[in-house]
Amino acid sequence: MRTTSFSGMNCSVAGALEAIGDRWSLLILRDLLLGVRRFDALQASSDIPPQTLARRLRHLEAAGLVVRRRYQDRPARYDYHLTAKGGDLLVVVTALRESGDRWQLHGTSGPPLESIDHTTGHPVELAFVDTVTDQHVERSRLAAHPGPGADERMLRRLQATRSR
Amino acid sequence: MRTTSFSGMNCSVAGALEAIGDRWSLLILRDLLLGVRRFDALQASSDIPPQTLARRLRHLEAAGLVVRRRYQDRPARYDYHLTAKGGDLLVVVTALRESGDRWQLHGTSGPPLESIDHTTGHPVELAFVDTVTDQHVERSRLAAHPGPGADERMLRRLQATRSR
Repeated sequence: MRTTSFSGMNCSVAGALEAIGDRWSLLILRDLLLGVRRFDALQASSDIPPQTLARRLRHLEAAGLVVRRRYQDRPARYDYHLTAKGGDLLVVVTALRESGDRWQLHGTSGPPLESIDHTTGHPVELAFVDTVTDQHVERSRLAAHPGPGADERMLRRLQATRSR
Repeated sequence: MRTTSFSGMNCSVAGALEAIGDRWSLLILRDLLLGVRRFDALQASSDIPPQTLARRLRHLEAAGLVVRRRYQDRPARYDYHLTAKGGDLLVVVTALRESGDRWQLHGTSGPPLESIDHTTGHPVELAFVDTVTDQHVERSRLAAHPGPGADERMLRRLQATRSR
């Protein structure tokens, strides 16, 4: 499937990308997040070649993002469910969708999907939020700091930030 | 570079993935977002093969996410800057980083990077926010609706949601 491993990079972005797999996997996760569960429906949703879909689902299972469940006995049939870890990628898929919408990368007349708060009907978007006060934080106020897992490379990247 | 095109899918997620390119591109965007600008520094940051880096940068330029600027005349030297469209992918890279942190996919002792509000020092995280009230919305309150660009496939995916 791939020749380059992104594990062992001491980087959360690389680690998440390694668990996900590739771009097809993100479309599979998009569909699982919407509740599409069966192999045929996943295949039809993106015209993904069946062998590619089977390989990506195995990778997502091995990474702990997806579990396969038997939903019928004779003949045995399975569908696919997100684990808590897989469901957590809603934020990643939503971030991609919102960027695609903002820059009209969807190739159609407007956003194909809208996310709302079903209790109020108001549109919902991702934003940076202060974890102490729960208030929205403007992007211009964000700063990056080395965390407990920062290695030499991270410190060098952050030096680039300071020297801008 | 790739054989499958994700454009023409009538999907914002697929469109954003097509503009980005691949997983290497996301690590390059991570570094550009931190202010790493020069080819050598980008190369050293991820041990990315130079030819791969050059190809991905050309792809990001063609997609309008990156611009190349001459910063020295003799010999001519260039560095790389994000456009507004490229900078918008901070949300995507942050979503990947936060998932990697939550599930300890960084392969080290703790988060390599922390995002704070530099005016308060408080930690900052992505969250779903009501665009009318600017208030944080719990994930359990989210609902997906077809937007103006929804095609047959999107309507089928959303039927799966309703039949769960």
